[in-house]
Amino acid sequence: MAEEHPGPLSGMRVIELSSFVAAPLGGMTLAQLGADVVRVDPVGGGPDARRWPLAPSGRSLYWAGLNKGKRSVTVNLRSDRGRDLVAALVTAAGTVVTNAPPRPGLTYEELRERRADLVYARLLGHHDGRTAVDYTVNAEVGFPLVTGPAHHDGPINHVVPTWDVACGLYLAIGLLAADRQRTATGRGRRMEVALHDVALATAGNLGFLAEAQLSTTGRPRIGNDLYGDFGRDFGTADGRRVMVVVLGERHWRDLVAATGLARVVSALEQALPADFRRESDRFAHREALGGLLVPWFAGRTLSDLEETFAGTSVLWSPYRAFEELAADGAALLRAQPLMAELSQPGVGPHLAPGSPLVLDDLRVPPAPAPELGEHNAEVLAELLSLTPGEVAALRADGVVG
Amino acid sequence: MAEEHPGPLSGMRVIELSSFVAAPLGGMTLAQLGADVVRVDPVGGGPDARRWPLAPSGRSLYWAGLNKGKRSVTVNLRSDRGRDLVAALVTAAGTVVTNAPPRPGLTYEELRERRADLVYARLLGHHDGRTAVDYTVNAEVGFPLVTGPAHHDGPINHVVPTWDVACGLYLAIGLLAADRQRTATGRGRRMEVALHDVALATAGNLGFLAEAQLSTTGRPRIGNDLYGDFGRDFGTADGRRVMVVVLGERHWRDLVAATGLARVVSALEQALPADFRRESDRFAHREALGGLLVPWFAGRTLSDLEETFAGTSVLWSPYRAFEELAADGAALLRAQPLMAELSQPGVGPHLAPGSPLVLDDLRVPPAPAPELGEHNAEVLAELLSLTPGEVAALRADGVVG
Repeated sequence: MAEEHPGPLSGMRVIELSSFVAAPLGGMTLAQLGADVVRVDPVGGGPDARRWPLAPSGRSLYWAGLNKGKRSVTVNLRSDRGRDLVAALVTAAGTVVTNAPPRPGLTYEELRERRADLVYARLLGHHDGRTAVDYTVNAEVGFPLVTGPAHHDGPINHVVPTWDVACGLYLAIGLLAADRQRTATGRGRRMEVALHDVALATAGNLGFLAEAQLSTTGRPRIGNDLYGDFGRDFGTADGRRVMVVVLGERHWRDLVAATGLARVVSALEQALPADFRRESDRFAHREALGGLLVPWFAGRTLSDLEETFAGTSVLWSPYRAFEELAADGAALLRAQPLMAELSQPGVGPHLAPGSPLVLDDLRVPPAPAPELGEHNAEVLAELLSLTPGEVAALRADGVVG
Repeated sequence: MAEEHPGPLSGMRVIELSSFVAAPLGGMTLAQLGADVVRVDPVGGGPDARRWPLAPSGRSLYWAGLNKGKRSVTVNLRSDRGRDLVAALVTAAGTVVTNAPPRPGLTYEELRERRADLVYARLLGHHDGRTAVDYTVNAEVGFPLVTGPAHHDGPINHVVPTWDVACGLYLAIGLLAADRQRTATGRGRRMEVALHDVALATAGNLGFLAEAQLSTTGRPRIGNDLYGDFGRDFGTADGRRVMVVVLGERHWRDLVAATGLARVVSALEQALPADFRRESDRFAHREALGGLLVPWFAGRTLSDLEETFAGTSVLWSPYRAFEELAADGAALLRAQPLMAELSQPGVGPHLAPGSPLVLDDLRVPPAPAPELGEHNAEVLAELLSLTPGEVAALRADGVVG
């Protein structure tokens, strides 16, 4: 299979000097597309080696999840010889992705002197080099103050580290773009992306900043309601909650038809007056419309809803807990070809995702994360032609793990 | 400048058949790196043409924000001649990104017959083709049930459309990877990515699914607290709120030192007993530790905090509203080189982000979004060598806008 369908990035080699989410996710995304990604850590592991959540064994599920399919090399980064070894690996690979503060010998300028066409992709907290993490960046750009119930006072943080995830993917994009240019012109590039810039750019791209600047009313805190059309959550007869989303006239028409509320909705439309074919009127009167729908949903079970909405354009989903998703592994594996059972050393078999990028219908199943330092001898031999004796000497001297 | 520093993707041409967030963001990200991205819409605009938020003029700030720097072509997609024209554009460009249901003449199979090395990147809702949007996907994968205050009952939706943003970036990555392979081998690829797969993959990559499967306790709902270490929000003397994050021993040591709480923290440590050098103990006793810090923060203003934490490793940020960010445009432009004033036809001048990807210190400022159909004649001439007379005839026949 690997020979018939090599990953699209096969032949690309990346050295990753990273920790936590963004840079590791960027590297993993490249690895899942066929690149050879070598994560370099201090001997004993980086600051994320024991980050929660943990497996019952104490191993970090977070580390295992974000470093799947890479090779691992451990080096004493406090020693000149260790850093020189890493610089040599970067020189051999030609491409590096990092969120580590540049140590002596490993700055862009020094690395580029060793390899003129280096592609160097670096994650920053703020553009000026000040540190930041997803949680602090999220606080700064406005989202927590418009998240949650209208009556809530104070910020509500998101649980998904959106900026970390987006930043990791931006890193991969920048690196691939720079690599493309290098292939065409022979020229390397230094690429930087800051977590805070990604958050601010997203707030801008989605119109939140322009709205705050140009609108006189500002964005209200609207709980689980959809902004600018009709969407909200409802309770069902069997104690579940579902999210229902209307985006455009067709969805609305189908929702009204499926729920049999055409007559009462039309009466409301005439009495107000309003025109519910328009998104602005659906949004303005969302409480009244929601009020009509609440008893309809409350009288139906999840399976009633599945039956009623089948074949319509109505967009809806039940809310599910992580526990519910994971409770029936066999069902999850059947329904979601993304998922596979992965045997991860130190953790044991568990459900893990492959790459969400599917090329020519070919799913790439998840590969285990490496053990720390698992590939020291192998990588030093392959990239730097070191003999087993030379690697053993480096290990004896405490230069590699 | 453009000649000295061409964008890394200059020479790449992409036809985008898209709407809403993910596919347009994927295309815009490529455009900001120098690709020529032509968004094709139905005459009069797609389903996202009037999506909220709106400018006072009624124009969609959402559309303007997600289509910056593209060219726009409008075509009657219900006519055979219109779809044939789009197929010809795709054939000429060689690369297409889409979230549109495949219309006759525009399926992958048909397009590939016209150009064997086509790179085709498609966004789906679910992997099996069922539709889904960010809100329904978010409900399905578990995050809303662990977001918000511990005492809250029911789901809390995120406001950032994380899955849309991530999916758009994955689309760009897949497209660049496939393009790289085409350059090396001459072979095209069909790439698909589903919104739901991206959400599920992220829940898996971050360890949420494995934790739910392997742990006996599950993840609690913990409000604004950081999971697995110490982090939370605090109120200040001047009525602000700040987020404070400790990731690792050094941050904790610096926070305790900066707040002068070493003696009382140490007494607590001995009395419990606990070892606050360990993240698990900081997390287990986060309420007591938070309780010690609440009065300290409540007695200080934001500028006191800036002074106290300067030069320490303490990670913190004030929460800011979008309105606060946008209120002083001049200050935002000074502090954030990402941002620029953009003159957008139909909207007017406003603050907009450029690309967060910075190559060789070069910032790419935001370019306006096109007017619908603005580039009809230009693109049809460039890509298909149509004469002004031929374009006029197509327009007269209602084939193009």
